[in-house]
Amino acid sequence: MTTVFMDARFMQMALTLGQRGLGNVWPNPAVGCVLVKDNRVIARGWTQPGGRPHAEVHALTQAGSQAHGATAYVTLEPCAHHGKTGPCSEALVQAGIRRVVCATQDPDTRVSGKGFEILKQAGIEVTYNVLKDQADRDHIGFFSRITKGRPSVTLKLASSLDGRIATRTGDSRWITGPMARRAVHLMRARHDAILVGRNTVAQDDPDLSVRDLGLAHRSPVRVVLDSKLSLAATGRLASTAQDIPLWICHTGAPGSPDHWTDIGARPLTCAATVDGRLDISDVLKTLADQGITRLFVEGGGQVAASLLQAGLVDELALFSAGVAIGADGLPNLGAFGVEALGDAPRFTRKSITTLGPDVLTIWSPVQP
Amino acid sequence: MTTVFMDARFMQMALTLGQRGLGNVWPNPAVGCVLVKDNRVIARGWTQPGGRPHAEVHALTQAGSQAHGATAYVTLEPCAHHGKTGPCSEALVQAGIRRVVCATQDPDTRVSGKGFEILKQAGIEVTYNVLKDQADRDHIGFFSRITKGRPSVTLKLASSLDGRIATRTGDSRWITGPMARRAVHLMRARHDAILVGRNTVAQDDPDLSVRDLGLAHRSPVRVVLDSKLSLAATGRLASTAQDIPLWICHTGAPGSPDHWTDIGARPLTCAATVDGRLDISDVLKTLADQGITRLFVEGGGQVAASLLQAGLVDELALFSAGVAIGADGLPNLGAFGVEALGDAPRFTRKSITTLGPDVLTIWSPVQP
Repeated sequence: MTTVFMDARFMQMALTLGQRGLGNVWPNPAVGCVLVKDNRVIARGWTQPGGRPHAEVHALTQAGSQAHGATAYVTLEPCAHHGKTGPCSEALVQAGIRRVVCATQDPDTRVSGKGFEILKQAGIEVTYNVLKDQADRDHIGFFSRITKGRPSVTLKLASSLDGRIATRTGDSRWITGPMARRAVHLMRARHDAILVGRNTVAQDDPDLSVRDLGLAHRSPVRVVLDSKLSLAATGRLASTAQDIPLWICHTGAPGSPDHWTDIGARPLTCAATVDGRLDISDVLKTLADQGITRLFVEGGGQVAASLLQAGLVDELALFSAGVAIGADGLPNLGAFGVEALGDAPRFTRKSITTLGPDVLTIWSPVQP
Repeated sequence: MTTVFMDARFMQMALTLGQRGLGNVWPNPAVGCVLVKDNRVIARGWTQPGGRPHAEVHALTQAGSQAHGATAYVTLEPCAHHGKTGPCSEALVQAGIRRVVCATQDPDTRVSGKGFEILKQAGIEVTYNVLKDQADRDHIGFFSRITKGRPSVTLKLASSLDGRIATRTGDSRWITGPMARRAVHLMRARHDAILVGRNTVAQDDPDLSVRDLGLAHRSPVRVVLDSKLSLAATGRLASTAQDIPLWICHTGAPGSPDHWTDIGARPLTCAATVDGRLDISDVLKTLADQGITRLFVEGGGQVAASLLQAGLVDELALFSAGVAIGADGLPNLGAFGVEALGDAPRFTRKSITTLGPDVLTIWSPVQP
């Protein structure tokens, strides 16, 4: 086997391990690490729930003295700064690692290049950019928070063949089938927070939890946009606020947040637009300030439209069901003033998956 | 090779030949016929443009005296009635065919079972229902006209991710890419007629022709719904009415059809609903009376909604483009009063095809 081939194989393993942390380690990145000696895996690590220990330390602890002379496959440049614990690059040096293979580089200026420098100064051979594209995709939220000051945004739309999410009377259960709904729960689990608008809460009374996956998983933070704090602190979200974090984004407008704090939810004040609505860019900045790196947006149409209009969608997940509702149904996207087709946001198809009777297409934005 | 296996192979060939006639042979069925002797194909026939000669006669003519002792694979029960020419079943007998393998049976009561009877009485061995499902799909229009008194209806929708066919200013060129538009031309070519509503004509000025396929093909009849005959006889449809049939369905309301007859178009009077619109069921009946077996409906949203509401759609072809237009755009489906989700028409997915950047999904209705 060539080194290039084996490097890709072991890095693929490290990436798969790293993905275990998605949604579970914010504000840290979900990193994977595999230690290999004589072409055999001797330890497997990934960023642990809550963000610590880091993947490298997790793997080194497993390997113990076996780590001496091994190769470490890491999905992100090992950290170099002294935070709550010592830097991973120094831990790799101390463990006697001979070679480090890395998927991509940390855009965090406290780290970028410095982790590699520590390794090289210790005489460790370093290989870069192995399966970089896939790693960059996995780290999109962590990178977005650092470079753009906002979480990455996945917009979920689940609609009929004509783009409707409910009938005119509000009947929306169920447009998609059980397999699609299960896939949504899996997507939720891999994000740090789920965001919905106030109308969605008022109409659907969702609990936005992660269920039925056969795995114990910390449920993502639930974020509700309610500019005027006009929603009552009742319903499924409110009743679970002690167990699963619930944040209410508002504009600091009249109305006391007490009814939310009383039940264990957390009001967050965000900037308003000139017409008094929540400034969606500032909402995302506020969430990033709280540590959120990966945001899953589940509606409704107005929230989706604001995000698209502001160019803030990184991935669009469209679940299409074989049903026709008609133009008096509720649209999956609100209006956002597109006049010329050339000004409408365009997307590139990344994948198509059938989920029982439904179809899931994943799209990423075409940069204008 | 077993007989069953070889029968399926030769029938597949006959079906493929038969499809050449789709859109080109109405009011006749598009039949294919393969003559086989000693496991070798000695002649291939298909219903010729305009509907005659029939596939069997076309193949028998090729084979000449070689047909004696051969097996005929035919995609539809050979006809038994004396129409403009003698019946195909008698022609097969006279040619000395030894065995006939047939895909499906003609629902035409003048034919059903009688063709087989003529063959059997002449001592010919007859095998039934080989690749019947595929044959029934190919003959859906011919069967629909006979059993339901209307053509089969394929509803085409080409829309954005949110189900829009144009921006609020009417900009619709182009939502889908060149490959999807080419696929539409191929679909047009396989139908007898293309139908659109008056708004689509007024807004898009389409010519609804078959272009750019690298094949010489008779263009389908263009049918426009214009209840009050209020469209002017101008634009692309009008200017080509001498070359490609153009039928205008109206309710016989005030307004003279002269401006259409003058340019070579053909007005057709259809029944009106209580609120003065065209009765879509009667439009389909009128088209069937004219011989149309396969109808391709290209919009707009109101026409699509009427057909769905009346349960008159046999196949839905949805072209989805990676673009978001928003709720002020023009919807692909008009309103048709769905209140409970359980009352919304449901569809089963038949296929998914990627066409460059776009996705084509084909759906067939779930029978309630």
